Amino acid sequence: MNPTVGDLAGNRALIADLYAQAVAAKCDIVAFTELSVTGYPPEDLVLKPGFVRDNRIVVDDLAKMTGSCVAVIGFVDAGVGNQVASGRPVIYNAAAVCVNGSIQHVYHKRLLPNYDVFDEERTFEPGTGAHHLFEVGGVKCAVSICEDIWRADGPVQQQARDGAQLNININGSPFHSGKLQEREEMLRTRATDNKCAIVYVNQVGGQDELVFDGSSMVFAADGTLLSRSAQFESGLTVVEINIDAPQVATVAPISDRYAEMYGALVLGTRDYVRKNKFTDVVIGLSGGIDSSIVAAVAVDALGAEHVHGVAMPSRYSSDGSKTDAYALAEALGIDCRTISIEPVFEAYLSMLAPSFEGRAADLTEENLQSRCRGQILMALSNKFGWMVLTTGNKSELAVGYFTIYGDSVGGYAVIRDLLKTDVFGLSRYVNQRAGREIIPEAVLTKPPSAELRPDQRDDQSLPPYDVLDPILALYVEQDRTAAEIIELGHPEDIVRRIARLVDINEYKRRQCPPGVRVSEKAFGKDRRLPITNGYRG
Amino acid sequence: MNPTVGDLAGNRALIADLYAQAVAAKCDIVAFTELSVTGYPPEDLVLKPGFVRDNRIVVDDLAKMTGSCVAVIGFVDAGVGNQVASGRPVIYNAAAVCVNGSIQHVYHKRLLPNYDVFDEERTFEPGTGAHHLFEVGGVKCAVSICEDIWRADGPVQQQARDGAQLNININGSPFHSGKLQEREEMLRTRATDNKCAIVYVNQVGGQDELVFDGSSMVFAADGTLLSRSAQFESGLTVVEINIDAPQVATVAPISDRYAEMYGALVLGTRDYVRKNKFTDVVIGLSGGIDSSIVAAVAVDALGAEHVHGVAMPSRYSSDGSKTDAYALAEALGIDCRTISIEPVFEAYLSMLAPSFEGRAADLTEENLQSRCRGQILMALSNKFGWMVLTTGNKSELAVGYFTIYGDSVGGYAVIRDLLKTDVFGLSRYVNQRAGREIIPEAVLTKPPSAELRPDQRDDQSLPPYDVLDPILALYVEQDRTAAEIIELGHPEDIVRRIARLVDINEYKRRQCPPGVRVSEKAFGKDRRLPITNGYRG
Repeated sequence: MNPTVGDLAGNRALIADLYAQAVAAKCDIVAFTELSVTGYPPEDLVLKPGFVRDNRIVVDDLAKMTGSCVAVIGFVDAGVGNQVASGRPVIYNAAAVCVNGSIQHVYHKRLLPNYDVFDEERTFEPGTGAHHLFEVGGVKCAVSICEDIWRADGPVQQQARDGAQLNININGSPFHSGKLQEREEMLRTRATDNKCAIVYVNQVGGQDELVFDGSSMVFAADGTLLSRSAQFESGLTVVEINIDAPQVATVAPISDRYAEMYGALVLGTRDYVRKNKFTDVVIGLSGGIDSSIVAAVAVDALGAEHVHGVAMPSRYSSDGSKTDAYALAEALGIDCRTISIEPVFEAYLSMLAPSFEGRAADLTEENLQSRCRGQILMALSNKFGWMVLTTGNKSELAVGYFTIYGDSVGGYAVIRDLLKTDVFGLSRYVNQRAGREIIPEAVLTKPPSAELRPDQRDDQSLPPYDVLDPILALYVEQDRTAAEIIELGHPEDIVRRIARLVDINEYKRRQCPPGVRVSEKAFGKDRRLPITNGYRG
Repeated sequence: MNPTVGDLAGNRALIADLYAQAVAAKCDIVAFTELSVTGYPPEDLVLKPGFVRDNRIVVDDLAKMTGSCVAVIGFVDAGVGNQVASGRPVIYNAAAVCVNGSIQHVYHKRLLPNYDVFDEERTFEPGTGAHHLFEVGGVKCAVSICEDIWRADGPVQQQARDGAQLNININGSPFHSGKLQEREEMLRTRATDNKCAIVYVNQVGGQDELVFDGSSMVFAADGTLLSRSAQFESGLTVVEINIDAPQVATVAPISDRYAEMYGALVLGTRDYVRKNKFTDVVIGLSGGIDSSIVAAVAVDALGAEHVHGVAMPSRYSSDGSKTDAYALAEALGIDCRTISIEPVFEAYLSMLAPSFEGRAADLTEENLQSRCRGQILMALSNKFGWMVLTTGNKSELAVGYFTIYGDSVGGYAVIRDLLKTDVFGLSRYVNQRAGREIIPEAVLTKPPSAELRPDQRDDQSLPPYDVLDPILALYVEQDRTAAEIIELGHPEDIVRRIARLVDINEYKRRQCPPGVRVSEKAFGKDRRLPITNGYRG
C-alpha cells in the first residue's frame, strides 16, 4: 500500500478498502505494511502522545471491522511508563493481528534500525519476551517487522524454532539502486536456513526523500520465489501458499539499473508533489541535461499539462541553449515561456555599483544571474501555485557548484542524488525507452556549462565528471578520507581540492530542498556531518 | 575547553597547552571535556574509519607527553569487529586516563543519549564490563562520561559501590534556558546519594546550532558545591579537593534568564562565524526589533568594526523605520548603508507583467520585495566575504511568516529559537545592561510590521504575539496536539489555524540557516517532523 505519513483517516480508508478486496478474493490472511496506520517513517510525530492515541483509535476500529480473514496491521503501540533516558512514554513499532472483530495479539518489533536514514531507537523501545504463534488454515504463522528479518540470529530464527511455518514480515524498506536484489538474496537465505515460508510485504510510495519500492515477495521454505509484485506499484497481490506443495505464482521481472532509477524518480516526485497538495510544477529550462531529465521525469510523474517550462536567457546564453530548451519542451509536449533576466540583472548591477566601486567582477555577478532566475521561478510559483522543481545533480551538490538561493531554489530536487555520470546514463535511457529523441542529442553531447560568463564550461572549475564522480563516490558515499583516496591512486591535488569543496559546502547543502534518494548514501539524513568542521583528513 | 569539531591538530594543541598550565599549577589530575580530541558532537565524522585512526594518533601522542599529572582525555576508541546491524566498525565514546607517558586505562561511555539533539546510538556502542578505579593522592577515582551520571542507577552508582571517592565526569552538555540549574540539582543528588565527590567538566563554545556553556562544577560527597566556573567561558579552573575536609573555592554566580540567553547568543554567533573562518557579518536593518537585537548580539560577538548594516527601503517603508535603523547603527557604532530596492522591484514587476496579466497583486509581490533584499545581502556577502546574519525569530519560523530566499537568507540565524515575546524581553535587557538606549525605544513600542504593503501590521496576519507564543510553546516545544491545546482553553479557531501553519511550513524551515538553540526544543535536529505530513490532530 501507499500510505501518507500522518494521514490517519486516509490510511484507515486504504486499509479498509484493501481488506474488503482481500475478503472478496477469499484470502485467509491479509498483511499490510509496517506502521500502515501512520505511514512510514512517521519520525517525531510519534513523540506526540495525542498522535499515538489517535492511531490507536484507528487500529481498534479496523480490528472491529475484521471477520475470519486475519489482518496484520502496522501501528504504534503505547507501552507502560516512561523511557528512562528521555522521560518520554514508552512506545513500540507494532503489528496487530486482528480477526473476528478484535485484536488477537500485538507483536513489538525487536530490532530497531538506527543507522543510515533510520532513527528508530530515538522513538521506539524494542519488543521482548516469548513469541506468539497463531494458526491459519492449519499453518503455524508468526509476525515480524522489517529489521527483525535482516539478522540471521534474530527473531525470525527464534520464531521458526518455536514452530513457525510461515513468517509474515511487514516492511517500510526504502529503495536504493540494487536494494531489491539484496532483499531477495537475504530472504531466500532466511527461508532456507529456517525452513520457513516468508511473506515479505513492503510499502510503496514517496515520503520526502525516501521512495519505497514495494516489490512484495513470497518465498517457500525451500527458498523458491513464489511471487514478486511489480516494483513501485501498490495494490493487493493475492498468493495461494500451499505450505507442503508450494507453487510459483506471478513473479514480476527486475528492471535494469536506469529503468529502476527512473521509476524511483517518477514515483518520488509524483508523491511529493501530490501528497503536499500541489498539481503543477515549474522548471527552469536551461537547455542543459539536468533540467531536461527533470522535465522528463515530471511529465511521467504528473502529465505534460501539469509541467511548465521557463527559459531565462541572459547576455551569456548561447543560441543553442535557447533552441534546445524549446526542442525539449516540444518533445515532451509541455508549455514553455521565455523571460529574459537582463532587465533585473542590469538593475542589480547599477544599484550595487556604488558599493562595488573599484572591485573587479567575480563570482558575485555570476551568482546574481542565477538568483534572478530563482526569483522568477519563485514568483511564478507564488502566483500560480506551481511547485518549483530543482534541477541540480549530486556532483554539483557535493562540490557546491551551484548558487544558493539561485539554481537551488525549489520544493523538490529530483536528481539531487544522481552523480552527473548517472544523469547522462539516465538521459540515454529516456531516449531509448521512448524510441525517439526526447532529450535532444545536442544536449547530450555539448560540454556542460552554467553560462554565467562568456564561454564558460564546467571543466574550467571542476575536473571532468569521469574523474570527479569516482572521487565523490569514495569520499561521500563510502566514507573514505582524502588520504585514503590518494592512496588508491587518484591524483593528490584534485582529491584534496574536491574533499575540501565537499566539506566547506555543507552549509549550502543544508539549505537545499529534499529530493529522491537513489544511492546508498544520499546527502541528508543519511550523512549527518557538521557544518563547522575542521577535519582535513 | 572550547574545541573545534574535527580540528584534531587544533584540539591537540589546546589540550597540550592546558595540560602544561595544569602542571605549572601543580595539579594531580586534569580533566578535559567529552570527546575533547574530536570536539563534540562529531556526528557522522566518526563513521570515517580514517578519522578514528587520526584521532587515535592524537590521543597516543598526548599520552606520551604526560608526566605524573593524570590527564583524562575524551576521544573515539576503535573496538573489535563490526556492529551487527549497520556493518560498521565498532567504536566507543571514550576517555583515556593518561599518566607518565602512556594510557593507563580507557573508559567507554555506558549510557548513550539518543533523543532530542543526540544521536549517539547511531555511531557508538555502549561500554560494558567491570569498572576500573585508580588512585590519585590516596583518593580512589573513577571516570564517567556525560549521560552516565544522569541516571540514578547508572555507572556512577556502581563506581561508588566499587569504592570510588571521586567521580570525574566529562561532558559535552549543550545549553538551554534553565539547564544549568537542572545539572546542579542532579549533581548534588548524585553526590549525596553515592557519598562521592564529583568533578563535572563541560565543553564551552558554539558548534552549529548548539552552544556548550561550560560552568564546570565540583561537588563534595556531602553535596556542597565547591566550585563553579563562569558560564560560557573556557580556561583552566584549579580546585583543591580535600576529600575528608572539603573547602569551597570560587563559585561563579548564576545569571538570570535573559543574561544567560544573551550570553548563549553571543558565544554561539562568535564561534559559528569564526570557526567557519569569517571575520565580518552583514545584517539587513529594517528598523524592527529582530534585526536590532541581532545587530546588538553581533557587535558583542565580533566587535562593531566587523558588523555592517544595510537599510533597504521600498515604497512601503515608513520614515520611522529608516530613522530607527540609523539610530541603532549609531548606538552600536556600526556602519550602515542604504540601498533602495525600488529599481529591481520595478524591473521584476515589468518582466513578469506578461505572465501575470489579469491577476491581482497578492503575496507574490510581497515576497518579491523580500527576495530583492535577500539578493542584495547575498551580493554584498559574495563581494566582501561577509557572512549574512539572518534575523527571523521562532514565532515567524513556526508559522512561516517569512519569505523563503528572502528574509530567511544567510549563514546563521541568531534568534531563530527565540519566540517573539522573548525577543522583546531580551531587547529590554540589552538596553538595561548598557544603561542607555541601544535599541531605540520607538523600535520597542511600535507595532511589528513587515512593511511589504501599505499600512501592513503583523497582527493583520497573525494573532497578537502574547496569544500566539503560548500556543506555539505547547504545539512545537511540548508536543501537544491542537485538540489538547483547545482543551486547555485556547481559542479553537486560532489553535487550528496556527497548528496548520506550523505543519505546512516545515518545508520552508528545512531550507533556513542554523542558529543558536536556547530552548528545550528548537526547530532542527531536536524536532524531526516529516514535510509530507497528513496529521491534523
